[in-house]
Amino acid sequence: MTDFPPGIAYIDGEFVPISEAKISVLDWGLLRSDATYDVVHVWKNRFFRLDHHLDRFTASVSKLRMELPFDRDGLEDILHRCVVRSGLEDAYVEMVLTRGVSPTFSRDPRDAVNNFFVFVIPFGWIADEQQRARGLRVHIASVTRIPPSSIDPTVKNYHWLDLVQGLHEAYDAGKENVFLGDGRGNITEGPGFNIFAVKNGAVTTPATGVIKGITRQTALDLCAELGVETRETEVSEGALKSADEVFVTSTAGGIVAIAEIDNVKIGESTPGAITKKLTELYWTKHSDPAWTTAVIV
Amino acid sequence: MTDFPPGIAYIDGEFVPISEAKISVLDWGLLRSDATYDVVHVWKNRFFRLDHHLDRFTASVSKLRMELPFDRDGLEDILHRCVVRSGLEDAYVEMVLTRGVSPTFSRDPRDAVNNFFVFVIPFGWIADEQQRARGLRVHIASVTRIPPSSIDPTVKNYHWLDLVQGLHEAYDAGKENVFLGDGRGNITEGPGFNIFAVKNGAVTTPATGVIKGITRQTALDLCAELGVETRETEVSEGALKSADEVFVTSTAGGIVAIAEIDNVKIGESTPGAITKKLTELYWTKHSDPAWTTAVIV
Repeated sequence: MTDFPPGIAYIDGEFVPISEAKISVLDWGLLRSDATYDVVHVWKNRFFRLDHHLDRFTASVSKLRMELPFDRDGLEDILHRCVVRSGLEDAYVEMVLTRGVSPTFSRDPRDAVNNFFVFVIPFGWIADEQQRARGLRVHIASVTRIPPSSIDPTVKNYHWLDLVQGLHEAYDAGKENVFLGDGRGNITEGPGFNIFAVKNGAVTTPATGVIKGITRQTALDLCAELGVETRETEVSEGALKSADEVFVTSTAGGIVAIAEIDNVKIGESTPGAITKKLTELYWTKHSDPAWTTAVIV
Repeated sequence: MTDFPPGIAYIDGEFVPISEAKISVLDWGLLRSDATYDVVHVWKNRFFRLDHHLDRFTASVSKLRMELPFDRDGLEDILHRCVVRSGLEDAYVEMVLTRGVSPTFSRDPRDAVNNFFVFVIPFGWIADEQQRARGLRVHIASVTRIPPSSIDPTVKNYHWLDLVQGLHEAYDAGKENVFLGDGRGNITEGPGFNIFAVKNGAVTTPATGVIKGITRQTALDLCAELGVETRETEVSEGALKSADEVFVTSTAGGIVAIAEIDNVKIGESTPGAITKKLTELYWTKHSDPAWTTAVIV
């Protein structure tokens, strides 16, 4: 028997325990990774930037030429009901639309019946408490991130084998996480997070070839609020290693400092001053009604 | 209720109807497309080149650092039992190993419990009877195939969104299927098939950036038997369009002629002489004990 984390799901039109939430092995979401998704988190019973996640999810669905069974209000309603039923105050809420099953196993994606589901599990972190306090030690992988000419990274997708192989490389090198490059000397992203460099008080992050993370956008917004200059541009591996501070952003844990890249220590001490300020402001926003939506019980 | 094609599966250690064969929504095979697979076909109760498929599948599993619950004999035994229970004389037999579920939803792939399953459904074709008789009309997509620097194509994988988006492009252009390029003017592969050009009696096929298809290897082997010269090399889109014959190879239908690429008619008539000979020889081999394995009832 498989063990599962606590949680619940909405699938096939029903709410079920997470252990019973399953899709057919014939679902093209598995057999072609033909699917899109989004993850919004709930912190102390409040969704964080829910509208941003819904905007991105519905845009991703359109780009893949799929259709949701609900309009936007219906979608939001299901998310609230899932979180309430989960009983979780701090939760990781993943909404998924797959191409679904074709009754004839036809190879034409237009013949499949799209499959929508949601699952809610406890809030998770890309780094544990100790790692967040001292900063992560990361490896830059030899494998390169799937380029935007092949897969549109603005469609949030499950094409992650490059990131997973990168993780194995990182563990082999005694590191805790991984950054992938674009094969031309620039950095892209890691498994589930965007990457930022701070140099002389200004912040840069890769402009292209990366998911446009909601937490990435949040970091840019918070920089603006703090009067910190930001630029979306190419960020070379060299510039990253010689930055004063490096941090990553993810729905799974917010803003996390990087202490070392390939044995190169980053900055004077970790977390750096700007990373620290952003992290504090990020968590402050979690009780601000302008940034959050209370879960409707 | 979802409709399903006929078939059966072996999953979670049991044989079940295909409609009941499911995986958890938390399986990393879905959430990271962290999985490998292989498809062998059965024709008139005989597996075709089963050893080749088992060799490739077990190699793919190792490259992804996963583990099968059976040794090779055990794996082969399960495949035979699945086919017998399916009652199908002509079948499509897909074996899959996913990273599986982590009981803690840990982001470390080493914490997951790998998930092995098999499903057997009726034999399917990349082209219908009429299309096979007159040759397929294909489109060359603007989207490029995921490069080998990101995903090792020798590990048979479900990273197919580029191919699916290419299919949509092809349908928009009024075509029936799609070829993807490498972004540097060379052709790679299509959704589930390899591509071959015939020029002045010699056969070429892309050497890199493509799955090393078993039917691809079979076509090369049959060329050798027929005394036709072959070369694995770069094949430009231009060379393809000016070829005397173009054909594709897939477990899902063998050798299939291409009639048109982007409105350019290929050769004098379709299928061409070499394509025809290869196709005939391919099907002849399906009753040859040296190329096939009888399903053990």
